[in-house]
Amino acid sequence: MVNMLINVPETVVADALRGIAAAHPSLTVDVDNRVVVRRDAPVAGQVALVSGGGSGHEPLHAGFVGPGMLSAACAGEVFTSPVPDQMVRAAAAVDGGAGVLFVVKNYTGDVLNFDMAAELAEDEGVTVAKVLVDDDVAVTDSLYTAGRRGTGATLFVEKIAGAAAAEGAPLERVEAIARQVNGSSRSFGVALTACSTPAKGSPTFELPPGELELGVGIHGEPGRERRAMMTSREIADYAVQVVLEDLRPTSPVLLLVNGMGATPLLELYGFNAEVHRVLAERGVPVARTLVGNYVTSLDMAGASVTLCQVDEELLRLWDAPVNTPALRWGC
Amino acid sequence: MVNMLINVPETVVADALRGIAAAHPSLTVDVDNRVVVRRDAPVAGQVALVSGGGSGHEPLHAGFVGPGMLSAACAGEVFTSPVPDQMVRAAAAVDGGAGVLFVVKNYTGDVLNFDMAAELAEDEGVTVAKVLVDDDVAVTDSLYTAGRRGTGATLFVEKIAGAAAAEGAPLERVEAIARQVNGSSRSFGVALTACSTPAKGSPTFELPPGELELGVGIHGEPGRERRAMMTSREIADYAVQVVLEDLRPTSPVLLLVNGMGATPLLELYGFNAEVHRVLAERGVPVARTLVGNYVTSLDMAGASVTLCQVDEELLRLWDAPVNTPALRWGC
Repeated sequence: MVNMLINVPETVVADALRGIAAAHPSLTVDVDNRVVVRRDAPVAGQVALVSGGGSGHEPLHAGFVGPGMLSAACAGEVFTSPVPDQMVRAAAAVDGGAGVLFVVKNYTGDVLNFDMAAELAEDEGVTVAKVLVDDDVAVTDSLYTAGRRGTGATLFVEKIAGAAAAEGAPLERVEAIARQVNGSSRSFGVALTACSTPAKGSPTFELPPGELELGVGIHGEPGRERRAMMTSREIADYAVQVVLEDLRPTSPVLLLVNGMGATPLLELYGFNAEVHRVLAERGVPVARTLVGNYVTSLDMAGASVTLCQVDEELLRLWDAPVNTPALRWGC
Repeated sequence: MVNMLINVPETVVADALRGIAAAHPSLTVDVDNRVVVRRDAPVAGQVALVSGGGSGHEPLHAGFVGPGMLSAACAGEVFTSPVPDQMVRAAAAVDGGAGVLFVVKNYTGDVLNFDMAAELAEDEGVTVAKVLVDDDVAVTDSLYTAGRRGTGATLFVEKIAGAAAAEGAPLERVEAIARQVNGSSRSFGVALTACSTPAKGSPTFELPPGELELGVGIHGEPGRERRAMMTSREIADYAVQVVLEDLRPTSPVLLLVNGMGATPLLELYGFNAEVHRVLAERGVPVARTLVGNYVTSLDMAGASVTLCQVDEELLRLWDAPVNTPALRWGC
C-alpha cells in the first residue's frame, strides 16, 4: 500500500467531501453529486459564481465557497474535469435570479464540460456567463490545454468577481470584472518534485533529485525547461522576470506566492522575500501579498508566482469581506 | 544542491522572517533578533502572550501573532529553541503593564530558555507567568522531552488564552485558562514520511515506503510503534482511541485535524471524515473542527489529531475574534 492518508483511491474525492461537510457547517455538500454549495444559497438578486475542476488542487475550489467568493464548486476526480451534470446542478442550486458566472480554468475537459453545462442550464432558464482563466505564461498549448493554462489567477478572479457579485453588481459587470482580473494576471510555477496521484500511487513524471522543472503546470505538465537545482533567489529572479515580460504592470499588483502542496511554509516565506526583492528592484509596487498553499498539485513540492495588476476598484474588491474555509477576512 | 526552495541552510530562518515581514504589514519583524510582534503592541492594560520555539513548524508560532492570539513569537533555528534574549526582548516589546504569559511547548531547550527568560524579564520589571503545553499522549519522555511533548494543543492554548487576554482578563485568569486548555487537550500524530531539515538536506530518520510511524513527534521523534501502512480509516480508529483513552471527554470537543506539512488537503479532509466517524461512534460531540497544516514538521507527510474538551466559556473564547496570518475570523 502506498504512503498516502487514504482508504482506497476510488473513494478519495468522496471521502474528502465528507470531511469538508464535517468541518464546515457553512457549506452544503452533496457528496453523491460532488457539489459544494454555500448554505445560504440561493441569495436572491445576487449573481452567483460557480467554479470547479479536477480534485487535487485543494483548497481550490471548495475552499473558496462562501459569502464574497464562490457560490458553489464542482469536484471532479483527481486531475479530471467534473461533468456537465454537476455544473448544471450547482447553477440551479445557487441561481438567485440574477444569473450565474462560470469560472473555468483553461483545460480542454473543463472548457468543454462548462460549455455544455452552460447550454443545459440556459435550457432550464438560468442565465449563464463564462470567464476563462488562462494566466500561466510558461507555455502556450500543453498536455491538457489549447492556449495558456489556468492556475493561480483563479483565486484572484474568484475573490474579486465574487466581491462584485456580493455588492449586487449585475451579471455583465461581474463577468467584465472577472475578465479584467484574468487579463491583468500572469503566473509562473516551478516543481522541485513530481506529484503522485492516489490512483497511480507513484510520481506522475520523473524529476531526478538535483533538478527542477521551470514552468510546470498544476498537474505536473512539462514546463519550459529542466535545470540543475537553483536557489530561491535564482528561482525568484527567473519567475518574476518571465511574468513581467508578459504583464508589464503600470500600477500596483496583488502578489500570490503559492505553494504546490508539499513545500514547507518556512520555505515559501523565504521565497516570498526573494520575490519582493525582485519586484522592488524592478520598480513594481506590491499592494497586497498572499503566501500559502492555495492552488496545489497534491504532494508536489514547488511554488508559483502570480501577479495581478489592480486599479483602485479591483483593490477595493480584493479587500472586501470574504468568508470561506480558505480565505476569510472582514467578516 | 538539495531540492528545497532555499538559498543556503544558514539563512533559512532569516529569509522566512523577511518574507513574513513583506507579506504581513500587521506584524513588526525584527529579523536580526528573530522576534515577530503585533504592530500595535504594547496594548495598554492587556495581558500579552509570548510564545516561540524551533522553526520548521510554521505557521506556528509567527502565523498566530495578532489581535486575539499571540502578542509576539520568537523563532529559533530549525528544530532548535530560541534563546532567552529573544524572549526577554519580546516580553519587553509587548508588555502593556498587565504582565506577560509565556506559552511554552514541553521540549527541554524551550523550557530551560523560557525559564531563564522569565527570570531576566522579571528583573526588568515585567511580570511573567508561564504555561507548559504537553498534550501528546504518544510517549512520556522522548528524544527532546521529559514528560509529554507539546504539539497541536499549542494552537488551542494560544487562541483561547489570547481571547481571554483580549477581553482584558488579568494575568492570573489568562494563565488559569491556558492551563485549563492544556489540561483538557490531547494529541496523537502519525508520520507517513520522514522530514528533511535544510542543514541535513536528507531525511532525519528512516521510514521505509510501505510503513508508518505511529505516535511520531513534530520533529520526527520516534513514536510508539512502526507498522505496515494503514488506511485513513484504520489510522483514525487508532489515533482517536489513544486520545480518548487518556481524555475521556464529558462535554463537546474542539477538533484539530492537523497536517504535518506535506500531506495534501485532499487527504486531510478525507482523514477528517474518518475522525468524525470514530468520534460519532464513541458518542463524543464535536463543537468545532479545524482542518489544515498548522503545527507542522517541515516536509513530513502525516497528520495529528488533537481534541480539546470545552465548556461554554472556552467555546465562547474559541469563537471570539482573531486576526492573525494563519487564523482569522470575526474581525
